Amino acid sequence: MVFDPQDNIFMLAGPVKMHPRVLKAMNTPAIGHRSPEFTEINRELRELTQYLFQTKNDVAILSGSGTAGMDAAMANLLDKGEKALTINNGKFGERMGQLARMYGECIELKYPWGSPPDLGEIEEVLSKEDIKVVAFVHNETSTGLTNPLPEIAKLAHKYGALLVVDGITSVGGIDVPVDKLGIDICITGSQKCIAAPAGLALLSVSERALEAMHDKKTYYLDLKKHVEKLREGQTPYTPATHLHLALLEALRMLKEEGLENRIKRTTRIANACRAAIHAMNLELLPDERYASNTVTAIKYPKGIADKDIRGRLKKEYGIVIAGSQAPHKGEFFRIGHMGLVQFRDLLATIACLEVVFAKAGWKFERGAGVAAVEEYM
Amino acid sequence: MVFDPQDNIFMLAGPVKMHPRVLKAMNTPAIGHRSPEFTEINRELRELTQYLFQTKNDVAILSGSGTAGMDAAMANLLDKGEKALTINNGKFGERMGQLARMYGECIELKYPWGSPPDLGEIEEVLSKEDIKVVAFVHNETSTGLTNPLPEIAKLAHKYGALLVVDGITSVGGIDVPVDKLGIDICITGSQKCIAAPAGLALLSVSERALEAMHDKKTYYLDLKKHVEKLREGQTPYTPATHLHLALLEALRMLKEEGLENRIKRTTRIANACRAAIHAMNLELLPDERYASNTVTAIKYPKGIADKDIRGRLKKEYGIVIAGSQAPHKGEFFRIGHMGLVQFRDLLATIACLEVVFAKAGWKFERGAGVAAVEEYM
Repeated sequence: MVFDPQDNIFMLAGPVKMHPRVLKAMNTPAIGHRSPEFTEINRELRELTQYLFQTKNDVAILSGSGTAGMDAAMANLLDKGEKALTINNGKFGERMGQLARMYGECIELKYPWGSPPDLGEIEEVLSKEDIKVVAFVHNETSTGLTNPLPEIAKLAHKYGALLVVDGITSVGGIDVPVDKLGIDICITGSQKCIAAPAGLALLSVSERALEAMHDKKTYYLDLKKHVEKLREGQTPYTPATHLHLALLEALRMLKEEGLENRIKRTTRIANACRAAIHAMNLELLPDERYASNTVTAIKYPKGIADKDIRGRLKKEYGIVIAGSQAPHKGEFFRIGHMGLVQFRDLLATIACLEVVFAKAGWKFERGAGVAAVEEYM
Repeated sequence: MVFDPQDNIFMLAGPVKMHPRVLKAMNTPAIGHRSPEFTEINRELRELTQYLFQTKNDVAILSGSGTAGMDAAMANLLDKGEKALTINNGKFGERMGQLARMYGECIELKYPWGSPPDLGEIEEVLSKEDIKVVAFVHNETSTGLTNPLPEIAKLAHKYGALLVVDGITSVGGIDVPVDKLGIDICITGSQKCIAAPAGLALLSVSERALEAMHDKKTYYLDLKKHVEKLREGQTPYTPATHLHLALLEALRMLKEEGLENRIKRTTRIANACRAAIHAMNLELLPDERYASNTVTAIKYPKGIADKDIRGRLKKEYGIVIAGSQAPHKGEFFRIGHMGLVQFRDLLATIACLEVVFAKAGWKFERGAGVAAVEEYM
């Protein structure tokens, strides 16, 4: 069988599978972004994004990727001489550090990929240094690890630092109660747990964050300007109107399911996925206690090549999963199970993984992976 | 009749009407942005964007609006102490100046809205000052004026300055031969003459521009990084995949029509539009010699209110045209006629304009506007 981009089971860690309703929403003629009709769309988006982030804060929608959102947060908050504390235990945590260094100073706590940060070390830095911003990646997509958000939030507040959370692969799949945890800027992307097309960054922005921002340091990514226009149901520059339409439909679907239910479903599927992996004698990449509910990263056993697993899965069975990123290319693979992923998708993925692992010579009890998933259904 | 967002004649100065083929291209399941399939899409986009810009230069595609493109150009080229010469004769020329001041220094030549720049003044500044970048808006969307690109290009080259051209509402509708004119960075947006959805900025970047860029001054908008990844058929960050799909289809359509033919058609329609306006005893906003071929700006005669013209046109006849922007709100209106606009669209627009102007008490020979258009058909 040949891989067909139009017809496959899509299990990346984002972009993710989209519902036909969401795709259909983009099949709409041009709409003026300064029209009352579009303002109405933005007003509904405002309600739905606040629901998503569990916040009363403004939620800006930037036409750009999740990285544009991270960039906006750091560029607006940091200036020369101001310090950020960042956590680098994966590709995106590393990126947060790069951004902090670009705009201000950065104290980066570095841990191996898949290892959680040391809360004691975080507190030590906070107690010794004048940290303006604690910025970290909640769910490290690159390693399938969820960093301990409530604990880090508590430390940031204890020492009066602003809290910036990259929730790109957690918001909508893992509980991120922005107001309850006092997150100043929380970032997510349209193409992850929301299951809309890629191209929009969503940022909840607290009053405290707005006050701490620098004027006129950025143009396109000026968050103050975005929030100001947002309050009029507008964006400062031409938005990606059709992505807004798709986002709206995807968030309506999320609301119909209910945020709590979506998080519960995501959790059950994650538990089932991990159980299946164990049943196949495979090992997770991250520390099990911090394993992510939206993406599962699995080590390749010695002698098993990426092309024989991920390559065959795609080519022979039309199932798309993710590999690992530099500098750990080929060392592990990742199954995304956020957004609209259902048990049927996971079952097909695990069953086909059993086939390709068996063909690659890996020893495990055939059928055990699938049986483990069934236990959760 | 009530305005229907799904069924109307859409004559904004961008976003513009899109072909169903382009909308349909987005009705595609999720696609991995690091997959060979997406790399193939980017390779075809590379060829088509080079055709569009009439260049052998790299053409970066940024997920963001046209303003993101302007921001990227200025942020990467300018640093403290470096001077840009900008021309402010409209809202977007003003924006170019704001960007230059944000990143470097700016000598801004300011002219009334609708007036062309004084080439002598430009040369005077270039001869006296150490100008790194001449940056201006080719087609000033806000006023319907086309600035004299070849003449300004010649001056920039004479004095060794880099040339940045905002071709957001010209590329694909007015001749912008990037290589022939030696444009170092030329910017356009997906939702204008290309007739794709809003949300992508396209930038042709010369080797000379790449060499003149500063390292690590920007993150998301880092053009060097974009060009580097482009050469591998990739983007540095997650692109708006579905907008890429739509852009691809829109550029295929442009290639099918032929760039030269599209520019010719746009010109004929612009000539017809201006003739109709004159036939209705109305006046253009810009100096006639510099009137744009992609957007026509028309002054409201004294006593004629925007709501009686533009408001009724939309509400009663389902025809969408643009108003004027601050600080000239309500003073004139604009008809966009770029991209896929056909004579039939212009005819309907002019005919309905005749009706609403007559109802508003304006004196002119009924039918003369439509007859003037017919002359060009």
